[in-house]
Amino acid sequence: MKYYAGIDIGGTNIKTGIVDELGEIVAEDSIPTGADRPQEVVLQDIIASVRGCVSTAGASLSAAGMGSPGAIDSERGVVIRNYNLGWKDFAIAPAMSEALGVPVTLENDADAAALGEVVAGCAKGAKSAMIITLGTGVGSGYVIDGKIFRGCEFGHMVIVHGGLQCTCGRKGCFEAYCSATGLIRMTREAGITEDDGTVNGKTIFDAAENGNKAAAELIDEYIEYLACGIANLINGLQPEVVGLGGGVAKQGESLLAPLREKLRREVFGGFALPRIVSCTLGYKAGLIGAAMAGKNLAASADR
Amino acid sequence: MKYYAGIDIGGTNIKTGIVDELGEIVAEDSIPTGADRPQEVVLQDIIASVRGCVSTAGASLSAAGMGSPGAIDSERGVVIRNYNLGWKDFAIAPAMSEALGVPVTLENDADAAALGEVVAGCAKGAKSAMIITLGTGVGSGYVIDGKIFRGCEFGHMVIVHGGLQCTCGRKGCFEAYCSATGLIRMTREAGITEDDGTVNGKTIFDAAENGNKAAAELIDEYIEYLACGIANLINGLQPEVVGLGGGVAKQGESLLAPLREKLRREVFGGFALPRIVSCTLGYKAGLIGAAMAGKNLAASADR
Repeated sequence: MKYYAGIDIGGTNIKTGIVDELGEIVAEDSIPTGADRPQEVVLQDIIASVRGCVSTAGASLSAAGMGSPGAIDSERGVVIRNYNLGWKDFAIAPAMSEALGVPVTLENDADAAALGEVVAGCAKGAKSAMIITLGTGVGSGYVIDGKIFRGCEFGHMVIVHGGLQCTCGRKGCFEAYCSATGLIRMTREAGITEDDGTVNGKTIFDAAENGNKAAAELIDEYIEYLACGIANLINGLQPEVVGLGGGVAKQGESLLAPLREKLRREVFGGFALPRIVSCTLGYKAGLIGAAMAGKNLAASADR
Repeated sequence: MKYYAGIDIGGTNIKTGIVDELGEIVAEDSIPTGADRPQEVVLQDIIASVRGCVSTAGASLSAAGMGSPGAIDSERGVVIRNYNLGWKDFAIAPAMSEALGVPVTLENDADAAALGEVVAGCAKGAKSAMIITLGTGVGSGYVIDGKIFRGCEFGHMVIVHGGLQCTCGRKGCFEAYCSATGLIRMTREAGITEDDGTVNGKTIFDAAENGNKAAAELIDEYIEYLACGIANLINGLQPEVVGLGGGVAKQGESLLAPLREKLRREVFGGFALPRIVSCTLGYKAGLIGAAMAGKNLAASADR
């Protein structure tokens, strides 16, 4: 059995772990990111954490993979810019490779999580899968033939020309309508709140469940936009599985059943609807996927 | 030097040819499709035409590729359904392979044309290219690392939720706004016609050139939608080159210059704008690309 280190870099915590070649986690750790420190200091913490995991697992590493948010250059293994972490032009993969003595790949964190779901989660065994994360933004990761299709990012696909202002500068992006942030905005605008006046991504679903008709209509409208964006991607790339992650996807079938219903009307006649499912791995997706990206790197180097 | 046969199947004519490994056509032929005849009879004509080309070129074939419109199954080499040709469940690639004694691949015709433009046309040498055809519909073909990314079809990506009715059943598709058909409809609705009352894809551009202000505004609106759809694909897939083909693209820089201007405002800050160019190979793109798909098939079989 071969083993790979996975590193999932987040703004608050960095998760590290050792994953076997089948995608099973055999050791893991989580450390505070401490983003106020110089990037080289954070790197030393990550190295120590990985070494701890290696020691716990009693395994020798074949390769490692990292998932990072922000603008990255996967070819060179460099985090170009990450505003949350304060990182800039950080050649983290080469530095990590030197420290660990194995090849290290750097991937976008959403891409890594998508690979995790294909190896061990909701899209296990699928020839191709699009993983869409409905969180603060809308992220997308595409995996085909077991490999990350780098840079597949459809959160800023305009679905409503001239529509809602998006943070990216465009108007009418998929993200502006379908992120948890977008849903919370819609909920607040409809005057639907928790008892204490706050609104979260669950508020609207709870209200609908309690018989609030306006809430049910708003959910229908949300799913309408979601179906529009997802149908674009199904028609455009024909994934075998579409997996939904992020906070909103926790609604499970009460979101997925009406979504499938709408998608059937939006997807080309000749195509069967892909499997539309919820992601199953949670935070582990990023860890497993990063490690499996390391595995793919080692395999391509062997060829 | 190795040689490959390319076959581009159209509703009116079928073009065949022999292409060398560098993408140069060394012999070619064109035969009427005769779509009213049984599919097996058409096949015999294609085989005879290819054999004629082989003889003219004095070359021995290493493989062949076919580009076909309609619903195809590339894995099995079967045209599932082509209404224009009246073809149904036609295992044309295996039949062709038996007749020619070499491996034969079947690709979507837009995909094949995109590969042709990457091998020998507007996107020569590009690591990745998206070729968008603005014709009766809007077709798209994506080539990455010299290979066709099968089934990348964004003509039916909704860019205006709830917008114009598209032939596919959805509302607001890229195709409904940006095909030559869509442009002709817009032109007619604006009351702009040729002297004889007809409208074609050039009418609006000619009118604008002759100082018609309404025509210039309409072109601006058309390019606005075109930029919206293309920006979605640039943000989503980050191609190195975007090549525009089809009748509308014949406008060249008078279309491309304002398009680039709008794209600069729509494409993510971190990305440089890809090269935005017109396709250069015309009908030869399909022929060359089909042959080069055959070359890729042979190369993957060798591995």
